[in-house]
Amino acid sequence: MLTFVKMQQQTNPTIVALATATGLGAIAVIRLSGTDAIHITNKIFSSKNLENLPSHTLHFGFIKDGDIVIDEVLVALFVAPQSYTKENTVEISCHGSPYIIETIIKLCIKNGATAAKAGEFTLRAFLNGSLDLSQAEAVADLIASDSKSSHQIALQQMRGGFSSELKKLREQLVYFASMIELELDFGEEDVEFANRDQLKNLILVISKAISRLIQSFEMGNVIKNGVPVAIVGKPNVGKSTLLNALLNEERAIVSEIAGTTRDTIEDEITLNGIHFRFIDTAGIRKTTDAIEAKGVERTFEKIKQASIVLYLLDPRETNESELLQIISDLKSTNPNNCKLILVVNKADDKTVKESLNQYSTINDFIYISAKEKINIDVLQDAILTAASFNTIKPDEVMVSNIRHLEALEKAHTALNNVLYGIDNPVTSDFLVTDIKQALYFIGEITGEITTDDLLETIFSKFCIGK
Amino acid sequence: MLTFVKMQQQTNPTIVALATATGLGAIAVIRLSGTDAIHITNKIFSSKNLENLPSHTLHFGFIKDGDIVIDEVLVALFVAPQSYTKENTVEISCHGSPYIIETIIKLCIKNGATAAKAGEFTLRAFLNGSLDLSQAEAVADLIASDSKSSHQIALQQMRGGFSSELKKLREQLVYFASMIELELDFGEEDVEFANRDQLKNLILVISKAISRLIQSFEMGNVIKNGVPVAIVGKPNVGKSTLLNALLNEERAIVSEIAGTTRDTIEDEITLNGIHFRFIDTAGIRKTTDAIEAKGVERTFEKIKQASIVLYLLDPRETNESELLQIISDLKSTNPNNCKLILVVNKADDKTVKESLNQYSTINDFIYISAKEKINIDVLQDAILTAASFNTIKPDEVMVSNIRHLEALEKAHTALNNVLYGIDNPVTSDFLVTDIKQALYFIGEITGEITTDDLLETIFSKFCIGK
Repeated sequence: MLTFVKMQQQTNPTIVALATATGLGAIAVIRLSGTDAIHITNKIFSSKNLENLPSHTLHFGFIKDGDIVIDEVLVALFVAPQSYTKENTVEISCHGSPYIIETIIKLCIKNGATAAKAGEFTLRAFLNGSLDLSQAEAVADLIASDSKSSHQIALQQMRGGFSSELKKLREQLVYFASMIELELDFGEEDVEFANRDQLKNLILVISKAISRLIQSFEMGNVIKNGVPVAIVGKPNVGKSTLLNALLNEERAIVSEIAGTTRDTIEDEITLNGIHFRFIDTAGIRKTTDAIEAKGVERTFEKIKQASIVLYLLDPRETNESELLQIISDLKSTNPNNCKLILVVNKADDKTVKESLNQYSTINDFIYISAKEKINIDVLQDAILTAASFNTIKPDEVMVSNIRHLEALEKAHTALNNVLYGIDNPVTSDFLVTDIKQALYFIGEITGEITTDDLLETIFSKFCIGK
Repeated sequence: MLTFVKMQQQTNPTIVALATATGLGAIAVIRLSGTDAIHITNKIFSSKNLENLPSHTLHFGFIKDGDIVIDEVLVALFVAPQSYTKENTVEISCHGSPYIIETIIKLCIKNGATAAKAGEFTLRAFLNGSLDLSQAEAVADLIASDSKSSHQIALQQMRGGFSSELKKLREQLVYFASMIELELDFGEEDVEFANRDQLKNLILVISKAISRLIQSFEMGNVIKNGVPVAIVGKPNVGKSTLLNALLNEERAIVSEIAGTTRDTIEDEITLNGIHFRFIDTAGIRKTTDAIEAKGVERTFEKIKQASIVLYLLDPRETNESELLQIISDLKSTNPNNCKLILVVNKADDKTVKESLNQYSTINDFIYISAKEKINIDVLQDAILTAASFNTIKPDEVMVSNIRHLEALEKAHTALNNVLYGIDNPVTSDFLVTDIKQALYFIGEITGEITTDDLLETIFSKFCIGK
């Protein structure tokens, strides 16, 4: 942490990178940040002198390499500290040709800038106090967000979210830690500067807040990575056709919207802003064949990970006792999450309809035809209802980052140790150690406590230009 | 043309589109243009009132859909007529998540904007007089430019290039046309308002300028689409290995530069800013086999299109008389362009070296090993030298657009007719008709003369958002 900060304050080199997506576009934005950002741009910009102009202004002109005009551009000036990084920042909007982008970036480098590393702009924003660490991490999540709910979690976190709450609680804890340390200075005298009841109350409040955040992770993670839906059923019951039918519906929705063309992952879809991840499975049935048993085992493993299980059946091939056994197996495999939806496929077939009469105790089926795309919308509604535990309120704070979860769990353990220490005859120095442990792990989330390694790990996951 | 202009002036609807490349990026820019551009943005922007603020200013705030925050953004304001389109224009810089981009564009549409068609921003810039038509077309070429020379042609054209020259000449021609028309009004009186000698001189000047532009097309087109290089030689002489060796060298160069990742076309490379298009060919030799003869015919067809021919040979398999015949065949196939480079492959092999002694009259070989990558740089230099006719001076005006070429050729014919008319006893009304023809075709280039169909054809080739 210190090395990073010191490096910044001493030299503050100007970094440059393409900030918009790569590829052809009408325009592209090249971003520079650092003490010399405006000075360097000025050297390659013609039409007016950019130095000493007001912040947040736009200037039309030409980027030139000596006498050769490279492009007509618009230059946006942000004078420190009124920028994302709190440094002087320039954004050059040029024509979106890879050749032009490359030439301008090279020209900036020739004139004193260095190529930005992944996440370096946001790292500087963090080091210069624009964002805390969890907010900085949320920027990457925000860019990657591809559904309404994952977007909401990221935005909530970026705007302060749980870190502002944690920071407040942490400050109070710091106060108690210093009081107890003061007691240690008066070691022999048995004084108590820190009121143990107040401390205990504070620890309970913090512990509760942290517990709540830990609990929110399961949902947060599911939202970030998609609600896992397992499609289960005997071979040839129509699982793939169903998946295609669900995907096709979605494709039609997506294709209406400009600018969303991107690599599609065959088995992920977004319905009503919620992201679903479909898991294909092998058929399940009792078997004595070792290899098949292995496949069934894997299927059950996947069912365990699922939040929703779609059981697709052809009633002509599954009698009631078998179906009851399957339902029971599924529910015992995944007792916590399992939202089971029974789906009868080929429902447009008369013999399928007739076979349904055999079931006397089960009747909550959804009838579809994956092939004829009948009732796919009804099934989608059922999936959305089953996933309704995943819809979040606009201001709900949620943890979706595994690094945060781990730090929160460690902080929670440390806080439990503090509570034990208060209720039992342990010496103040043990108490202080445990409080410091808790402080350390809470601070790791918001970035009060960081190491170069941690920063390296976090920001290297960013895209270049952010 | 009239319909387009009228539509603009009467309703001037606000259009919206993503202006940067699609895909994940740190930031993305959404552009709005039209009378209500600022008003519509203001409806979804919170933190300050955007109306009546000065042009060319930047404003930080939030895009909100009702109470729900969509993103933290920077809004750039361009107040009419100080913008590319000469209309009110807003550029919203948001985080580069496809979900956020889609949501903001939808929100703009919900608040009164319409989705922009391909090229619609530039079409408006043209209709509102920011650019003439050939300049507008150059914008698309500029974005697509992927080498130093194609970039230079596009930029030259966008900055006025030949159209400003043509415009000046056209104005003088318009003057003469009106003078001759005046003569027609005095039909019976045999007056000459238009001095025939001056007219003839003007026509000769225009005709010469147009001839020069027509001649520049061949080079302009080659630069825009890449210098075609045919690699010719007997089967197994190492053509593919050579191509790979050339491509590998280039890949290493490209990979040093950030932000250039894009779909690579296997057989195109850029050396020293010049784009080369490699054409693979079947072997050439005299044959009586009909199918093989077809293949050889196609090879010769490709050789005709090439600016440079690399003839790759293994001297152990080609004796001197055969090689002389091949050289003669190649030169007669492509007498104008053919820059022939004789390349001896496998030059690291002792027996290859020895076989070279058999050639008494030919000695201008380049010795390489495609496999061992020996002397590939020497070959590259030779290719660059052979292509040196393709290097252009910074301010050289060049035509690279087939539409312009056709219009220029038609104008040239009409001008020849005018010259014929001046020197021969034709009536003034014939003269006027031919001058008007020439004016029409020159005007088509710069956009003084347009039709809706023409505009449709030109701008539909643009990307959305430009």
